[in-house]
Order: sequence, then C-alpha cells, then structure tokens
Amino acid sequence: MKKLLEEYKSGKITLEQILEELRFLPYKNLDFAKIDTHRSLRKGFPETVFCQGKTKSQVVEIIDTLSKTEHNILATKANKNIYHEVKKNHPNAKYNDLARTITIEQETTIPKKGKIFVVTAGTSDIPVAEEAIVTATLMGNSVEKHYDVGVAGVHRLLDIKDKLFQSNVIIVVAGMEGALASIVGGLTSKPVIAVPTSVGYGASFKGIAPLLTMLNTCAEGVVVVNIDNGFGAGYFASIINR
Amino acid sequence: MKKLLEEYKSGKITLEQILEELRFLPYKNLDFAKIDTHRSLRKGFPETVFCQGKTKSQVVEIIDTLSKTEHNILATKANKNIYHEVKKNHPNAKYNDLARTITIEQETTIPKKGKIFVVTAGTSDIPVAEEAIVTATLMGNSVEKHYDVGVAGVHRLLDIKDKLFQSNVIIVVAGMEGALASIVGGLTSKPVIAVPTSVGYGASFKGIAPLLTMLNTCAEGVVVVNIDNGFGAGYFASIINR
Amino acid sequence: MKKLLEEYKSGKITLEQILEELRFLPYKNLDFAKIDTHRSLRKGFPETVFCQGKTKSQVVEIIDTLSKTEHNILATKANKNIYHEVKKNHPNAKYNDLARTITIEQETTIPKKGKIFVVTAGTSDIPVAEEAIVTATLMGNSVEKHYDVGVAGVHRLLDIKDKLFQSNVIIVVAGMEGALASIVGGLTSKPVIAVPTSVGYGASFKGIAPLLTMLNTCAEGVVVVNIDNGFGAGYFASIINR
Amino acid sequence: MKKLLEEYKSGKITLEQILEELRFLPYKNLDFAKIDTHRSLRKGFPETVFCQGKTKSQVVEIIDTLSKTEHNILATKANKNIYHEVKKNHPNAKYNDLARTITIEQETTIPKKGKIFVVTAGTSDIPVAEEAIVTATLMGNSVEKHYDVGVAGVHRLLDIKDKLFQSNVIIVVAGMEGALASIVGGLTSKPVIAVPTSVGYGASFKGIAPLLTMLNTCAEGVVVVNIDNGFGAGYFASIINR
Amino acid sequence: MKKLLEEYKSGKITLEQILEELRFLPYKNLDFAKIDTHRSLRKGFPETVFCQGKTKSQVVEIIDTLSKTEHNILATKANKNIYHEVKKNHPNAKYNDLARTITIEQETTIPKKGKIFVVTAGTSDIPVAEEAIVTATLMGNSVEKHYDVGVAGVHRLLDIKDKLFQSNVIIVVAGMEGALASIVGGLTSKPVIAVPTSVGYGASFKGIAPLLTMLNTCAEGVVVVNIDNGFGAGYFASIINR
Amino acid sequence: MKKLLEEYKSGKITLEQILEELRFLPYKNLDFAKIDTHRSLRKGFPETVFCQGKTKSQVVEIIDTLSKTEHNILATKANKNIYHEVKKNHPNAKYNDLARTITIEQETTIPKKGKIFVVTAGTSDIPVAEEAIVTATLMGNSVEKHYDVGVAGVHRLLDIKDKLFQSNVIIVVAGMEGALASIVGGLTSKPVIAVPTSVGYGASFKGIAPLLTMLNTCAEGVVVVNIDNGFGAGYFASIINR
Amino acid sequence: MKKLLEEYKSGKITLEQILEELRFLPYKNLDFAKIDTHRSLRKGFPETVFCQGKTKSQVVEIIDTLSKTEHNILATKANKNIYHEVKKNHPNAKYNDLARTITIEQETTIPKKGKIFVVTAGTSDIPVAEEAIVTATLMGNSVEKHYDVGVAGVHRLLDIKDKLFQSNVIIVVAGMEGALASIVGGLTSKPVIAVPTSVGYGASFKGIAPLLTMLNTCAEGVVVVNIDNGFGAGYFASIINR
Amino acid sequence: MKKLLEEYKSGKITLEQILEELRFLPYKNLDFAKIDTHRSLRKGFPETVFCQGKTKSQVVEIIDTLSKTEHNILATKANKNIYHEVKKNHPNAKYNDLARTITIEQETTIPKKGKIFVVTAGTSDIPVAEEAIVTATLMGNSVEKHYDVGVAGVHRLLDIKDKLFQSNVIIVVAGMEGALASIVGGLTSKPVIAVPTSVGYGASFKGIAPLLTMLNTCAEGVVVVNIDNGFGAGYFASIINR
Repeated sequence: MKKLLEEYKSGKITLEQILEELRFLPYKNLDFAKIDTHRSLRKGFPETVFCQGKTKSQVVEIIDTLSKTEHNILATKANKNIYHEVKKNHPNAKYNDLARTITIEQETTIPKKGKIFVVTAGTSDIPVAEEAIVTATLMGNSVEKHYDVGVAGVHRLLDIKDKLFQSNVIIVVAGMEGALASIVGGLTSKPVIAVPTSVGYGASFKGIAPLLTMLNTCAEGVVVVNIDNGFGAGYFASIINR
Repeated sequence: MKKLLEEYKSGKITLEQILEELRFLPYKNLDFAKIDTHRSLRKGFPETVFCQGKTKSQVVEIIDTLSKTEHNILATKANKNIYHEVKKNHPNAKYNDLARTITIEQETTIPKKGKIFVVTAGTSDIPVAEEAIVTATLMGNSVEKHYDVGVAGVHRLLDIKDKLFQSNVIIVVAGMEGALASIVGGLTSKPVIAVPTSVGYGASFKGIAPLLTMLNTCAEGVVVVNIDNGFGAGYFASIINR
Repeated sequence: MKKLLEEYKSGKITLEQILEELRFLPYKNLDFAKIDTHRSLRKGFPETVFCQGKTKSQVVEIIDTLSKTEHNILATKANKNIYHEVKKNHPNAKYNDLARTITIEQETTIPKKGKIFVVTAGTSDIPVAEEAIVTATLMGNSVEKHYDVGVAGVHRLLDIKDKLFQSNVIIVVAGMEGALASIVGGLTSKPVIAVPTSVGYGASFKGIAPLLTMLNTCAEGVVVVNIDNGFGAGYFASIINR
Repeated sequence: MKKLLEEYKSGKITLEQILEELRFLPYKNLDFAKIDTHRSLRKGFPETVFCQGKTKSQVVEIIDTLSKTEHNILATKANKNIYHEVKKNHPNAKYNDLARTITIEQETTIPKKGKIFVVTAGTSDIPVAEEAIVTATLMGNSVEKHYDVGVAGVHRLLDIKDKLFQSNVIIVVAGMEGALASIVGGLTSKPVIAVPTSVGYGASFKGIAPLLTMLNTCAEGVVVVNIDNGFGAGYFASIINR
Repeated sequence: MKKLLEEYKSGKITLEQILEELRFLPYKNLDFAKIDTHRSLRKGFPETVFCQGKTKSQVVEIIDTLSKTEHNILATKANKNIYHEVKKNHPNAKYNDLARTITIEQETTIPKKGKIFVVTAGTSDIPVAEEAIVTATLMGNSVEKHYDVGVAGVHRLLDIKDKLFQSNVIIVVAGMEGALASIVGGLTSKPVIAVPTSVGYGASFKGIAPLLTMLNTCAEGVVVVNIDNGFGAGYFASIINR
Repeated sequence: MKKLLEEYKSGKITLEQILEELRFLPYKNLDFAKIDTHRSLRKGFPETVFCQGKTKSQVVEIIDTLSKTEHNILATKANKNIYHEVKKNHPNAKYNDLARTITIEQETTIPKKGKIFVVTAGTSDIPVAEEAIVTATLMGNSVEKHYDVGVAGVHRLLDIKDKLFQSNVIIVVAGMEGALASIVGGLTSKPVIAVPTSVGYGASFKGIAPLLTMLNTCAEGVVVVNIDNGFGAGYFASIINR
Repeated sequence: MKKLLEEYKSGKITLEQILEELRFLPYKNLDFAKIDTHRSLRKGFPETVFCQGKTKSQVVEIIDTLSKTEHNILATKANKNIYHEVKKNHPNAKYNDLARTITIEQETTIPKKGKIFVVTAGTSDIPVAEEAIVTATLMGNSVEKHYDVGVAGVHRLLDIKDKLFQSNVIIVVAGMEGALASIVGGLTSKPVIAVPTSVGYGASFKGIAPLLTMLNTCAEGVVVVNIDNGFGAGYFASIINR
Repeated sequence: MKKLLEEYKSGKITLEQILEELRFLPYKNLDFAKIDTHRSLRKGFPETVFCQGKTKSQVVEIIDTLSKTEHNILATKANKNIYHEVKKNHPNAKYNDLARTITIEQETTIPKKGKIFVVTAGTSDIPVAEEAIVTATLMGNSVEKHYDVGVAGVHRLLDIKDKLFQSNVIIVVAGMEGALASIVGGLTSKPVIAVPTSVGYGASFKGIAPLLTMLNTCAEGVVVVNIDNGFGAGYFASIINR
C-alpha cells in the first residue's frame, strides 16, 4: 500500500487509479462469490471452498478461478457429483470418499519436519479425522493417524503414548462423550486440538455432548473447534506446526 | 367507518346492514383461509402467501382470490410444482428459483429514489437474500446487491463502503457466525436489518448462532428478523425506505 | 393383604374394617406431608427427608414422626439451622458439614462385606461425594473414598486400580467435563454409578456438560443419576451391594 | 502383569520383549478399529459392535476378528443389510428385527438364577426394550418382559407387582413423559434401570422429556442411561444380577 | 354497544359522544397502568394484580382503583412489604404467607356446589398449590386439598381415589419429575390441570423437567399451565367448575 | 369391586377367583399391548390408538380387540396405509386426510347442547385443528370451526366475537408466534385450550415458540397441551363441555 | 479521506503525517478503553457508555473524555452510585431511575417532526421502555408513550389506534408472551421495533419466550432487538424517524 | 521408567520397591486433593489451583505443598480472602484484582522471543484477558495487550494491524456477539485463540452467544476455549509460542 501511495504521489498513477487499484486488487468478483485471491499472501494458504449450500456450477466456477493462482486447492463437504464436474476441467483433482474433499495439487511442497498426530475415539469418527488429514497434508505437513483408540480401554491409548510425545501437535477427534481429548491432554505437553463429532445418538444431541466435554476439559493445553470441523483442526494444526 | 356510521344515521343503511357491512367488508372467506383484502389499505401492501404447510390447491385458490384486487401478488417458500399450477391461471406469474418466490405484477410502480443495499456474508446465503430482493423490488424499491463479502476478508467489505454510504437501508444476510451485521453496523449510520440464515453446520444449530450474534451486536442501528426470513427483511426495508 | 382378606372372610374383620385398614396402614398424615412409614418395609430403607423447599418446622415435625419407627433417619440438603432445631429433640443427631446431611442412627447394623468405592474427579466435587457416603454408610455399607483422582493425570487413577477391582460397586463423582466416569468404566467390570456435579463454569452450564458426558459414555456398565444427587448414587449403590 | 515382570526378571523374556508384549497383547489393530480382545477378561463380556456410522465392510471385518475369540458376539443399531453380509461368514448369526441387533452365540452359558424384568410404558417402546433383552440374554440372564403397562392405567402395573417383587433387577423403558420409572421405583426395593426413549412428538424433544423425568425421579433406587440405550440397560442389569 | 348505537341514532347522543363513550368506557388509566375495570363483566372476574416487577406504590394505586369496583381483589407474587402498605387503606386485606397473595373480599359469594381438588406431589410444592387455592376460593369455589401424595408411594394416592372421583376438577401441583399428573390423569375422568413447579435441583432446570413431563403425558384429560402458575390453575379450574 | 368382595364373601366366588377376576378384568393383553378395555368405564371414553411408532399389524390387532367393546374407536397419527389395512375388517372405518385419524363409529350419541369452537391462526394449522375436531365430534360434541383468523389482522377475529361468546369451550390452534391464544383469552370468559403447532420455520423451533407464548400468556383462562396435540385438546374440551 | 489524500499529494502533509492522521484521528485511547470520538461523524450520534461490567472510575473517565466533544452523552445500565460520581464533574448530568440512564445534554437539538410511539404490554415493562425513550429523546425525537396496553384486553389497544396511525415509528416493549408486537404490527403500516423484556417467570426463561414470539411474528413490518435492549430500539427508531 | 525397570532387573530395587515407586512417585496425596507434582515434568508447567469450589484451607494446603517443588505457582478464580491467607506463608505471593489470580514466582525465566498479543472487544472483557496475561507471563512469555478494540468501529482494529502481524499468537477476548475473533482471524495468518466471555445481557445467555459465534467462525486459524477461560487461552498460547 505504501508503494501504491508513493506511486500515486509521484504521479505514476492518478487518484482514480489508486482508488480503483485498492478496490479491485485483492479478489476476483464472480457475482455470486468474491474469491479472495489475495488470501494466500495474507493467510499463507488460499481460500478453501466450503461446498455445502453452493450449487454445482458455483463450486465449479470458483475452483476454475482459484486454479489460476497456481496454489493448491481444497474443497470441503463436497459430494461426489460435484467432484465429477470439477474433474472435467481439472483431471488431476482427487476425491477423498470419507473426508468428502476435493483436492488439486498445483504446488510441490517440502513437508515440514514436525509431525501432526491425529487420533479418533472410534471408527465412526474417521470421516472428520480424514478431513483434518487431507487439509494438513495439502498444507505441507506429515501426518500420522491412529483410529479407534477409545476411552473405554485406556490401554489402547497408553500404547501410543510415545507417538504422542514425538509429535508436534495432536488432533483428537471424538463423538459420543468426547472424553478422549481430556485424557490425551492430561498425558502430554503438546498442544491438543479437540474436534467434537456428531457421532452418537440420544443425549449426544448431534455433537453437543462432546463439544461441552471438550470445552470443559480440566486438562490444560486443549482448544476446541466446531462440531465435525476437521478442516478447521487441520488448518490450525498446520499453522502451529513448526 | 365514519362514513358508514353517517350513512347509517341518515337512514341510508339499516342497523343490520351496517353490522353486516362491518363484518364482511375486510376479507374474503375461503373456508380454509380468510384473505385479508383489506390489508393493502391498512398496511400498504397486500397479503403475502406463505406457502409452506399449505396444499397446492389452497395456494392456488388464495392467489386467485387475491388477484382480483389488482395489486401485486407475492408467494414465498413456494416450490416449483405450486408455481406451475399457479401459472395456469396467471400466465404472467414469475418464479425465482433461488428465492423460491412466485410473483405476479399487476401494478406499475415508480421505484422510490432511495436504495436498499443487500449484502450476504457467503454464497450459500444467496437464497435468503434473493427473497428479500424479490420482496423489496415488488414493493417498488430499487435494490442493489453484493454477495459473499465475508468477514474473513474484511477488505472485501471495505471495498463497497461507498455503496453502503449511498444507500438508504442495508440488509445483511449471514449464516455461520453472522458477524457481518456487526461490522456493517459499525461502519455506517444507515439502518441495518440483519437476517440470520440456517447456513452452517455443527454448532450453528440451524441459525441459532448467527441469530444470537445479531441480537447481541454491539453496533448501534441493527435490528433482527427471524432465521431465513428474507421476506421480513425486504418488507421492513421497504416501509422505512423513503 | 391375603391375610387381611382371609381374616375378613372369616368374619374377624368387617368390610368397613378391611377397607379402613388398607387405607390407613401405610403412612402418617401430617397435613403438609404424608410420611411413608410403610416404606421401610417396601423399600428396605425408611423415607429420606429432602429439606430444600421445606420450612424448618416442617422438617422437624417430619423427623419427629419418622423417629418413632426406630429406623435410621436421613435428611439431605439440610442447612445448619435446621440441624440445630432437630438436635433439640434428637441429641444424637449428627450433621455433616460438607454433605449437608442430618443423620440419626437408631439401629445397629452389621456392615455388608462388599465395598463401595467412591472417587471424585476434583476437590470441589467432595460435597456431593460425601452425601453419597453418608447415605451408603447409614444403609450399612463399608465405603472407601479417593478424592481428586482427576482425568488430566490418568496415573492418579491407574494408581488406585487395585482398589477399584476389589470393590463391589463404584461411584464416580465429577463436574466440569465429567470424563472420569468413562475411564473408570473402561477399566473395570464393576457397576459404575456416575454422578455429575454442578462444579465448573461457563459451558459446564451448572452440570449439563458432565451429565451429557456420562449419558453418552462409550464405556459399558455405567449408569447416571441427577446432577449433584449424591444421595441417589449412595442409595442405588447400597441396594446392589451384595 | 506380575507374571510378565517376573519372567522378564528371570531372563525368560528381554526388555524389548516385555515392552512388545505389553503393547500388542490386549487388542487387534484393524487400522480403522482397535478391537479390544482383552475386554472379555477385563470387563467380563467382549467388545460390542456399535454399527451406526460404520461402513458395512468395517462391521464385517470387526466381527470376523472378534469371532476368533470364541466369545459371544453382539452388534447393535445394525440394519438388515449389514446382517446379510455378516451371515455369509457366520451362518449362525441371528438378527432381531425390532432390536436391530446381530448376535452370534459361540459359548454355552448357564443362565443365572436371578431374573431381569423388562417393562415398557407403551408399544412403541418395544424396540429399545428388545435391545436390552437381547443383550441381557446373551450375557446369560433369564429375562421376563411385560409391554405396554402404561401409566395412564396404573392397574396394568399393579397387576404385575408380584413379578416386580420376584425379579432381581428391573429395566423400565419409556418415552413420552417417562413417568413409569418413578412409579415402578416407588413400588419396589429392587434396583431400577430407566431407559428414556425417543418415542413421542412435540415437546418430548426426541427423548429429552423422559430423560429429565427419570433423572429427577423422587423414587429412590432409580438410575438412568442414554436415550434409546437398551444395550446399556441390558448390560448394566447383567452385571448387577446375582 | 347496540344500545349505544340506538341511542346515537335516536339523537340522544352525538357522533362525538358515541366515539368518546366507546373509547373511555372500559378502563381507568393510571398513567403507568390501565386498569381493566371492564374485565369483571367480560371475564367474570376482575383484573388480578401481578406484583412482580411493579413498585410498591404502583401496586397500592392499582389496588386502590380496583377497590372502587366493589369486586373481590387478588394480588399475586406479593411480598409482605407490599401487603403492609396495602393494609393501610384496606384494613380487611389478608395475606397468605405461603401463597404470597393479598386478597380483599368485597363481595359475598355463595360457593358453587362442585368441588375443586388440589393435590401436590411434595411438601415443597405447597406454596404454588396455596396460590391456586386462594384464587379458586376467592372466585367462589369450595376447594379440598391433599398435600405430599407423592409418586414414590402410589398407595398414598390410591388412598384418596374416592375424593378424586367426587370432585369436579383436579389441580395437580408437582415439581421434580412431575409424574403425578399422569397418574392422576390415568385414574380419573375428571379434567386435570397440571402445574409444574420449580421445586427440584440439577436436571429439573427450574421446572422444565415437570413441565415437559406434563406436556407429554400419555393420560388423556390433562392440560398444563406455566411453571409455578398456581393462579392460572385456580382461575381455569374456577371457570370450568359447574 | 365392592360387589366382587361381597360375592367372594358370600362364597359365590373363591379367593383364587376374586384375585383372578381383579387381575384380568380391566384389560386385554395382546403381548405387545395391554388394551385398556376398562378405560371406557373409568374415563368415559375408550382407549385411543396412537399409531406413531407402532407397526401396521400392531395397530390392526389393537383395533380389532377394541372393536369388541362396541364403543367408538379413534386412532391418531395414522397414515393411509394403516387405514387401508384397518378397513378390511372394519368397512365403516373412516379416514380424515388432514387429521390423519381413523374413526369407527359403533355408538349413536346425542350431541351435547354446548358448542366447542375451534379457531386456527393460519391455514397451515388446520391438520392439528382437524384432529381436535374429529376427537370432539366422536365424543358427542357439536363443534364449530373458523380457520385462519390470524393475529396480523385482528378484525378477522373481532368478527367472530359473537361465536366465541356463544360457545362453551374454545380451542385455539396456532403455530409461528402463537399469539392468538392470548387475544382470544383476553376477549372471552370461556375456557380456552391452546394448542401450539410445529408450523413455522427458523426460530419457531418446531413449535417451541408458540408453546412458550401460550404458557406465558397474560390472559386468564388459558391452558396448554403438547405441540401438535389436537387430540388432547379435543378430548379435554369434551370432558369440560357441559 | 479524499481531502487528506489530496492535501498529502499537494505536499501540505507528509506521508508520515497522513498515516499518523489516519491512525490517531478517530478515537481517544484510555488504555482500558478506546473512545470512538469519530463515531458522531460516522454514525450521527456519539458513542454510548454501556456501564455494566465497567468499574466506576472507568465510566467516569470515559464520560470525561466524551464530554470534550460537546455532543450529548448517554450512559446506560448505570446504577445510582456511578451517577453520583459522574455528577461531580458534570453538574448538569441527569439520572432516570427507571431507565437507569445518565444523560448530559451539551447540544440544543430541534426535535424532528415525526413521532416515535412507545407502548408497553405491562407496567413491569416500563424500565425498558424508559431506556428507549431517554435514548430517542436525546437523539432529538418527540416521543409519546402508552403503558400497560396489554393483550388480555385488546380494547385498550384499539383505543390508541389513532395514535399508532399518527406516529412514524412504533416501539413495542413486552415481556411474558410478547404477543403485543404481533397485534400492533397487524394493525398498522408503520415500522414496529419489538423489544422483548425479561419480565415474567417460569417458562418465560428471562425473556426467551417474548423473544421467540417476536421473531416468529406473522405480522409484517416487525423487527426485533435484544432482550431488555431499550437503548437499541430507541436508537434504531431515531435513525429511521424522518 | 526404563531406568526403574533396569534398576529393578539389576537387583538394585525389589519388585515391591519398583511397584511402590511407580505408585507414589508422581503426586502428593493430601486426602482431599492429589497434587500432581509430576506435572511440571510431564506438561512443562506445574499444576494450577482452580480455587472455585474449594475451601480456603484446602487452597492454602495445596499451595503449601506445591511451593516445595520450587516451580512458579498459579491460582485462578481466587478471591481476595484466599489471597490474604496464602500471603501469610508466602509473602511474595501477588494478587491481580481484575484477573482474580494469585501468583508466586519461584523461578527466574528468560522470556521467549515471540510475542503473545491479547485484544479485547470491550472494557468489560478485561478481567478474562488479565487472567490470560497473568498465565502467559508466568509461563515466560512477553505479552502485549490492546483493550476495547471493538467491532463497531473496525478502524480501531485496523489501527493495530501491524502489531497483530508482529506477534506470534493472538488471544481474542470478547463477550456480547464475539465477532472480533472472526475479524482478527480474517486479517492475519497467526493462530488465534478465541475466549468467549459472559459479558452481555439478554440473549447473550452468559456467554453462549459469543461461544457459538467463535465456534462457527468462517475465518481459518481460530480455535476456542471455554467461556471466561482466560487461563486456558494463556496456557495454550504459551505452549505454541516459539
């Protein structure tokens, strides 16, 4: 902006031009969506496409626009129909059935040294964990996963204690009562990102139970993201993994 | 009513007649619905047909009755089947796919000078915004829209600041965390009508999250309507747009 | 009842008498309270006085009446004022400051062999645990307690694993996220009675968080009582301790 | 573990071996699930397969693995498709249409003497009751059931009073207002396990109403499990039935 | 109104007069309160003063105004301070300590034949029951009450079955799990008005638990009023007691 | 019962017989349902079949059993499939499409003099109102209905004021904000039974909004039943209509 | 800003100066508070001091700073202690006991022509209404108020219909069931701002009941602000009153 | 543990000794509390004393025990009385009035290079922010704070953009609608820890509104802790600040 101001002062650009510039620089306007092409610079990762509630053609057009930035592309909560449509223009697009993500790799990244460790309480929590893994991997992290470590069998967790200790960040994905986050948080000094899932029935109230459990954890070093928000956990883990 | 009373006094009409008159004047009784044909006078806009929960034939019969008043007609939350049925009798009926509205223009209105400005936080909020726009347009307003101005990219909003300042009323449509209303409300002295949407997942609880955000806004000049109530926002914007 | 019917048939008692008998046998009517003196027979333990919402004089009169049955007496959620009033007529009444219970021992019971084991997650959960202990002890059980075994330090729990295994029934008292019940439930084959407490702040919502956690536990063999209901847990533990 | 430590000391096994042993002993790792084959020892009953949220192939593989332990196998919340798949490898697998359970009997158990008595408030509560019965039966109990004893017709309940008195444990399954648990709890000295169901409409809020009723019961000796958790009730009843 | 219209026609009163008349007839305007002196005619009982949230002087002034109608006066949720102030001008005012009501009898009513029967589940529910009784009595009913008939001791209820059958209307006041309404409703063909109370703790959530119980009752002939609304129950019972 | 006791005493029946009699008299046991054939005597109307959650064959068998009592039969929340099945054995069975009720008239009743008046706020509330009307009519009442009287057009209500005044009991059925009950309650001295419906969207939360509105009404003489419980309202109106 | 940019270009101010200017212009930084002195320009009314949660000395210092702008000053949710402290430096400060507001008039405003009309449902809603009135008056509006117009006496409302029609904006303040907003909204074509209050008990849940009522209103032209937010309603009414 | 096992093998310690060692090593048992003296090693920071719900003497005894480890000590949610008691034994104990924390510095730490930046939305959020700052400072971080940056005046935030960019971790503390976290999250690539506070009234529901806002944020890189949990945010910020 300083540069723009100086160019403007020096007469290289006019008042109208500088105002115009400031207005149209940072994003592409698709009428139904403003694509934040500037985000990669500002946030270190390009805009992610949250597909739920968008029409097929909206998603396709957004991805087409984003693809011109030559950054990696991630679309979440995407069904397979959308993927097939996207694949037409982007043959290297990949779909993860469990995570329901579309990814297009356009950069070659050197994975960071530190590891992100993803654990789930049960088998049913895997889809949310996979979303976190897809996200963190695309952002250049090496990720290790252990599924179904449970709470009602704490030895399954103690067994992977070493792996917990060797990782840099831990993502705990758990539905039902969500107690796994507290136990992992109590065992380790590493930052723990807790993801409640909507897995469960009855008084789990589609994820409220594990959400409250995780927010009330008496273990230090645990933070929480939205119910089923694997992407958010993967993203946050990536930016603190150094 | 005064007139009626005077006619009654002068003997032009009897006691029975005046009572009768007062009773049957203001609406048409369809057995399953009382159509408030009097509303156009009282409220400045005829009754709107809220289609959800009504059978196809009920909607058709209500619209047929309303159409005799020669006012504009608006039906909301209408699916396409209902529209096809309505179109049989009303070939000039129009359907907005996103807004799920049926409109029949029977009046020619001169748009008011002042502008209503509609912004959405995301692409998925567009259907609710469109309902507001259809409503406000039918009520004789010129409306301008900007979609997907987001919060996680505040420059997209700052960019349209001028438009905010030149409008008379602003409608902010936002799901997920609904923070856009607060920011718009903080930037401008214009009345802001906030519409929470059910867009989101997990702890958005089908619109409770943005609803609470908007109700608790610390920005002055912001009021709230029901979740997904684009019609209500468009209507209110219209009556305060002068 | 059979006996009554036979006596009635044999003419020992009249129709009126048998109806009368059936009616007035089981309780003492204090106008504001019907004391279920029959309960000791039916339930194996006399009626407990829940003091909250009762006036001082009501509690005193109920205890006076109950004391005539020569069973042990228990009053819960009692403040100290009530205790001082009760003590006037019942010098052997005892008050537990933490549990806020009044007890009057009128029977000599031989403690059962099996042990009830009471654990709390934190120090602040002690009052509820004490209510459970007072109840179970008065009902003739030997109780062992371990407080503050936490979750964020699972070794504190593993340390008392042997004690868990040697007990007959386990009561887990926990506020905040209430995860302790799941972990204890996963470690042992003994029945676990989980008591959520209102200890915590913010999103613990006065005990809703641990209540939901406990109801959604993926550990088998765990049941739940009301928030802060130490009495209920102690009572239930007693009737299954054999 | 003591044995392992002594073998290790005596040199029969090395430090690496003992660590290895401790690690791989208690469960089979299926990548997407860690099957707790050790649980039968620790808990007295093998791991149960909760099918909801698992793919068909995941359930099949888990059951295949569990079947090698020669214990009884129970899968809950299973649809018929999964059952047909399981039956291919396990021709003796049985499906309970109402309870939606798959069971494979691999042990011959001598039923315990004590009886578990299962009552439902209404006909619609039967599926949850059946889940409890399948569980308790597989765990070696004799179960007796009485359905639709209601509340709005208390004589239907009084009629089975004798059966209540002769049983060891009582499971009460009730939706709508869930009051049956309180009444049964008031009549008997036996432990009562209350199961709220999601049967009802309007303000039953998918089981919240009976859940709250049961948690707040003023009858002693009543504990609660999650909404629709017939399995949990059957399991708990089994471990306290002696 | 007919009369007014005819007088107006016959010229006895002018157009202005008739409009004026219609406007100022039905209530006294106290600036901070509009006293509905017309209500006694319209509703059969004068306006009741709900004291909560009103200042002492507001209550006093309202009662002073109401007293001029020579109807009975009832003020609810009144503390003793307000009563002492009211008593200065109205020496025959009475205060019910439990119900927290002020009553001033200005009419002599002949009690109706039919009886209203009020039962409470516990002793702590008495204040709400008393509010119902004060109301119904002042409205000219004979009321009979039985307190603490409980649920966890159903024989206490069966005992008063005859009284239930001989009454015209039954009011059931219950906190905690509120199951009493269902049982009473199941026993009798008389209309039952259920009043949930805020008595309880933990998951009773200040009356939500019994409220939901009562709304979901499977007994026919049961309706519900607001939590702690003894007045509403007494009022409704009065208007249906014939 | 007195008669039975006397017969028993006189030796006409034995002890076993009297016990047997008492046990099997009041209901038919269908294994999955206990049909309360005794209810017609006790409650003045036979048991109603709530179809939701019951299998087709269960409903058919219950209705077959009930039909032997020669009382009128009512089944609620029934879909058309069930009706077709019922019709095979009961050709005079009738189905109300809106109310989703099956009725079989087996008695000829003389309608009571008093009228029940049913009003709905909107057209979408009609199904719930119809359930109330079917119920009340089958119980021998004459019912009058006025639909869509709204709140946002209070003149539509004032118009039917006379009808309100001439009826004995009023049922108000309203979704969305449910304010109609308060206004009707304020206008009339007749008992008003308010039925909240799940009609609405967004913050109506499937009927919570009108439920709370109705519970908090400041109009006297209004009671509430469960959301969408047209049957309950019709039943209660019937027993107080004299 | 344009002016600043042009001055900067013309060399009147340096790059540093313009950046400085932009940074420090709009507010005074008090360390614990950033006072938005720029707001009067941007929003048309200076920052309002929300006193709840602030210490006495914080409020005083903020008001001292604001007073230098020579605009009117408004502090809400202020207790009398704070007022006495403020009055020391600002002898012309005024306190409204009911509204709990402190106002300091520093400008002379010519009241706008249009009227704002404030109605409350009950007497207990007056404090919230007063907050709205103080706000709107200070912002240069003429306000008229009518208190206790109720719902359970709709004639009290019809009586002031003319005043409703002559006003420009209407504020409806209502607790309990909050139905007044719907009725006023149905009667008039003027914009209605609905303010739910926490007045009520039981199922009003501190204002949730009227909040939901108002959000779900079927009357057009009604918008909602936060519970008890009289200030927000007064502010919004002011900016749309032309 | 390896070391212990080798010592045991080499005979330096016996089987009993090793078992004993493992048991009693990690914490001090105070009867009412198990102090996790081992935590400093495991978690990198000693156990923190959460004072709420603990008696004064319990807190004092816990702090006395912790002080022997020669680590820094932190007690949260402490009132001043507890502080005065603690100070008797620990004259260097310090109390932060706003944060309500007691700290005892026993180590000299070299502050880490990276900065933690703490912003609050309003002045009333300061106490929670202070708790975060005390925690992070005691854990060896340099912290910078900016209070009252608001949302309704986004320029106050843009003004400190540079500071946001120069920090390593950002803590956003906000009550009311909690929108600040989204905006900060959208501006920066740094990890943002959002702390909802219970500041607000009405529909903020003691912090639920900002909690939901923060969980639903559409800005990436934002995680959430419990309502008012300044400690948790400060702790988490510390462990990721490198």
